[in-house]
Amino acid sequence: MNWKRMIFFVGLGIAALAMIGLTSDPACAQQRRERVKEGAPAKADIGENALKVYVPPGDLDEYYAFLSGGHSGQLYVFGLPSMRHIRTIPVFTPYPATGYGYDDESKKMLGGLTWGDTHHPGLSETKGEYDGRWLFINDNAHGRVARIDLRDFKTKQIFGPIPNLAGNHASVYLTWNTEYLFGATRFSIPIPKGTAADVKDYKEKYKGVISAIAVDPKDGTMSLGWQIVMPPWNYDVADAGKLVSGDWWFVTTYNTEAEFIDGKPLEITASQRDKDYIIAVNWKGVEGEIKKGNFTEIDGAKVFDPVKTPGFVFAVPCAKSPHGVDVSPDGKWFIGNGKLSPTVSIFSFEKLQKAIQEKNFAQHDMGIPVVKFEAVTEADIPVGLGPLHTVFDDKGFAYTSLFVESAVAKWQWGGGGREWKMVDKIPIQYNIGHIASCEGDTVSPKGKWVFALNKLSKGTHLPVGPDQPESGQLIDISGPKMKLIAQAFPEPEPHYAQIIKTDKIKNVIEVYAKAENKNPNAVWDPKDAKVVREGNTVKVWMTQIRSSLMPNVVRCNEGDKVIMHVTNIEEMRDELHGFGICGYDINGVPSPGETLSYEFIADKPGVWPYYCTNFCSALHQEMQGYLIVNPKK
Amino acid sequence: MNWKRMIFFVGLGIAALAMIGLTSDPACAQQRRERVKEGAPAKADIGENALKVYVPPGDLDEYYAFLSGGHSGQLYVFGLPSMRHIRTIPVFTPYPATGYGYDDESKKMLGGLTWGDTHHPGLSETKGEYDGRWLFINDNAHGRVARIDLRDFKTKQIFGPIPNLAGNHASVYLTWNTEYLFGATRFSIPIPKGTAADVKDYKEKYKGVISAIAVDPKDGTMSLGWQIVMPPWNYDVADAGKLVSGDWWFVTTYNTEAEFIDGKPLEITASQRDKDYIIAVNWKGVEGEIKKGNFTEIDGAKVFDPVKTPGFVFAVPCAKSPHGVDVSPDGKWFIGNGKLSPTVSIFSFEKLQKAIQEKNFAQHDMGIPVVKFEAVTEADIPVGLGPLHTVFDDKGFAYTSLFVESAVAKWQWGGGGREWKMVDKIPIQYNIGHIASCEGDTVSPKGKWVFALNKLSKGTHLPVGPDQPESGQLIDISGPKMKLIAQAFPEPEPHYAQIIKTDKIKNVIEVYAKAENKNPNAVWDPKDAKVVREGNTVKVWMTQIRSSLMPNVVRCNEGDKVIMHVTNIEEMRDELHGFGICGYDINGVPSPGETLSYEFIADKPGVWPYYCTNFCSALHQEMQGYLIVNPKK
Repeated sequence: MNWKRMIFFVGLGIAALAMIGLTSDPACAQQRRERVKEGAPAKADIGENALKVYVPPGDLDEYYAFLSGGHSGQLYVFGLPSMRHIRTIPVFTPYPATGYGYDDESKKMLGGLTWGDTHHPGLSETKGEYDGRWLFINDNAHGRVARIDLRDFKTKQIFGPIPNLAGNHASVYLTWNTEYLFGATRFSIPIPKGTAADVKDYKEKYKGVISAIAVDPKDGTMSLGWQIVMPPWNYDVADAGKLVSGDWWFVTTYNTEAEFIDGKPLEITASQRDKDYIIAVNWKGVEGEIKKGNFTEIDGAKVFDPVKTPGFVFAVPCAKSPHGVDVSPDGKWFIGNGKLSPTVSIFSFEKLQKAIQEKNFAQHDMGIPVVKFEAVTEADIPVGLGPLHTVFDDKGFAYTSLFVESAVAKWQWGGGGREWKMVDKIPIQYNIGHIASCEGDTVSPKGKWVFALNKLSKGTHLPVGPDQPESGQLIDISGPKMKLIAQAFPEPEPHYAQIIKTDKIKNVIEVYAKAENKNPNAVWDPKDAKVVREGNTVKVWMTQIRSSLMPNVVRCNEGDKVIMHVTNIEEMRDELHGFGICGYDINGVPSPGETLSYEFIADKPGVWPYYCTNFCSALHQEMQGYLIVNPKK
Repeated sequence: MNWKRMIFFVGLGIAALAMIGLTSDPACAQQRRERVKEGAPAKADIGENALKVYVPPGDLDEYYAFLSGGHSGQLYVFGLPSMRHIRTIPVFTPYPATGYGYDDESKKMLGGLTWGDTHHPGLSETKGEYDGRWLFINDNAHGRVARIDLRDFKTKQIFGPIPNLAGNHASVYLTWNTEYLFGATRFSIPIPKGTAADVKDYKEKYKGVISAIAVDPKDGTMSLGWQIVMPPWNYDVADAGKLVSGDWWFVTTYNTEAEFIDGKPLEITASQRDKDYIIAVNWKGVEGEIKKGNFTEIDGAKVFDPVKTPGFVFAVPCAKSPHGVDVSPDGKWFIGNGKLSPTVSIFSFEKLQKAIQEKNFAQHDMGIPVVKFEAVTEADIPVGLGPLHTVFDDKGFAYTSLFVESAVAKWQWGGGGREWKMVDKIPIQYNIGHIASCEGDTVSPKGKWVFALNKLSKGTHLPVGPDQPESGQLIDISGPKMKLIAQAFPEPEPHYAQIIKTDKIKNVIEVYAKAENKNPNAVWDPKDAKVVREGNTVKVWMTQIRSSLMPNVVRCNEGDKVIMHVTNIEEMRDELHGFGICGYDINGVPSPGETLSYEFIADKPGVWPYYCTNFCSALHQEMQGYLIVNPKK
């Protein structure tokens, strides 16, 4: 397929020239902005577009968008169509604005790590529909996954580091009834973790791992289900099947060359083959094997070997280095987005099943059966340069992000006599990575908006120095032609988003019910606030209510351990109180009805004020106390 | 003045009832939103308002707004009128999204503290105009101040903890030619820090301190100028004089009762007096005394005592517990916003000078001369309940935030025959704290917009759990009546903002010039990348360019010290590269042309991938290497 390679490199060249021409010369600012406007509203449309995204004070947005925050380690909540940032949900990084990572419980959950690399948020599903219960998110850096409860929008569990797995990129991509979420190795390593082997022995000693994390259907608690040991390929992006394909899980690969050479860039060694793979996993089948005891235990994980027991894991060839794989709303098709190819490839799930039954394999690669490309492929859509991800609407169209071309392609969904074809394209500013549509990865997409998550913004905003923000652009997909409506600048780095209709998230808690506070150290009346010394430990039970912290004086000795249990006894929405101790590195923000605990050593003698850090009332400034640390004699 | 007290308490009661009525019953959601709409655009205005805040993709905002992030420790850059968040500038809190606090230099700058409490950003001024050079911000919690360079929007210096000072709230409030910025004690303590004394001895042994931090006019470097020891009052909010009052600095006080009683809330003990003070400091005069050697050294600081040497520090009585003090654009007036009073008080700088010359003092309080209220007051404006801050426009009007009333009052500036009078009021959602106008604290305010920074948002957004965001609302002040245009939800907690016309910030760096990289460890060609062992230290010189990190293999032994110098050798705008090491708690983001260093102990054996965390190119996923840590034998 040399023509594809040629097109790719010519395309890359054009894109690079365009980028250089438009960005390195400051005199080009105006020209650059004009280019942006290729995709921007025509003057006549401006009033109409302004109204579409305008949400007057007091009105609410129609959709929640949950954006991953990349290496910020957090999740961001936006409202659509206004694209207003509403809330930061801290997940893998301490966040003093809400006190996350400072109280004993959240500190323990972070396990001594101070950042993560969030990529792919996943809303819990029931029968392939978002059910509004939980939001999961992966940490690519340290191989973890987290659960956010959508009753209070707080991180409740961090699971991991997952054994045997390094780089957890193809995650979370949960099954369509939330039985499992997944993790997969982006960077193969010798297993178990802690084993050192040189890259000279990469092909033999490094391993990939796909990890199924079980989700408790009652409360969402995650636990290690099982793992599949895989060849040392790089596992990239995934999607779970739904309906007919509901027992299956798909993940793209790159570097199926299975090489890592000291001194030679992976970008070269991993781009030799014309095709890499989409791996199709019959997760229900593997689960059955695990139940039968067909596994080896490695570092506490039940590890299944698909080479020893064939029949559950297959490779589907896909144009080189595919990035996203996306299962259609009806579950009948899966789409490979070959990032170094000018097309997306449509594969038929039915044909895959037939090829597997008939053992219609081209070869085995490192023990994994590779089905014949021709046996499973249905169509190739010439979307343009650098397709990364595809999402769906409610009218039978798909939308593919084109990184190299900086565009979104709209194409018609085929099958059943309908033609597979390109129908529209719109320029994007710039280098779009992921793309999200309203409930677009469920069994019933909602249409209306597409959110383009762009890697580069290149001065489409006021200058803010070399650390430029990412760009998010909203596309109106309600008509036959796409319309670029508005632009915002999400926090680094929105790798993916999920968009859910607001009525799916019900019963959000705004004040914790007093009766439900199970913390044995809660006190509900300032009169019960107290300081008790036990040996070298000083224990404090503190209340917060407008406008005092009680006790307002805590005395201890240098070197004492101090444990403070702080209860916000407010019963009114929005009445947060902060708890900061000057000079001591603590800032908590108990929500109304919540009790949080802080433990530290009083290692600095002197008088250290503590105070409410959340402006709460006309007498907020007076909400203050003193920690008096008597020096060692 | 018992009527004032009565009005205040009746007002508080009404406000409290209104808040309870509108917030505790979920059935009130609709009613609550209707109330919001009191201040929201009428239906007929919606199209017009939408257009006013709409900035189409590719167009730029007119103004920068720099918002303090409260206990998040950061600064946030918004564009106005769109109210879009463009960038987070990390200041006192590590921020893995840009790698701040992870490389050796920024880590050292943070000094082991992981949060701050930013309150009052201050743009550098020349002759009372913003000059676009630097942005300063205080840390209320640990008594620090920071400088951000507006060439690259990065934090370049953190100064502090400032000696003798606890709680640095009335900060930074720089002088009108940026000679000094200030810090002041919000929570008096025994000095020097480290001294323990019980609150029983509060009046005698606790001290307030006003601290002048000198700013180097060449490069903005901050250093400790001098301090003034003050009575143990709480120093709240400040402003520097300008033009005629340019040698003076003003700060409000509360708790001039000078009491702190164990078990008794400060909100009660500090609200006994009808009046507290605005302290007026002749900083130029004190500077002269310091130069003459008239100081005592305490903990390395040159401390001036205004009781021993009178003539430089005076108290002006102001309605109880004043919050903001604001100097008018012409420098002739200063305004006290008595947060427990229904009026703002206008004081004349000329009258103050006369009263001082004539020693027209009512008394001395703890040694500080108190000028007669009648001698310096000019007018009282009945703005409404809970005035906190006042800002100015270009047409002779002032705008005061009313916390208790949740409103903004517009009033006419008097003097020279013009009447001092209220002209308009608009409801705000809810509990407005600070307020900012376009260059409104300079000698030439620009008018056009007022930005209301509200403490509570109370469900004027999609539900996001008990930790609700703050609310920011944009008011169009171009016409005779104020119009509430739009609402956004800034990160916690926007205590104050400064708004600057975009053309004032010039020559923003987007790519660091290679020739200006003075780091001795920069390498500019992947061929020069290398690993060198020196004893138990492994030193690495690494390059980053699309799409490889070189070296791509680093070998070391468990327990080695590893020092990595990472240079981003890109020369194109926006081509950031990340540098994350799986399992090791490091994530850096060198900007194009920047070299950053990371030092750590290789304490975890095994194979640990490192990779680019900032999606940079079509082959970003391949931008990867391995740290191989051979285990101890």
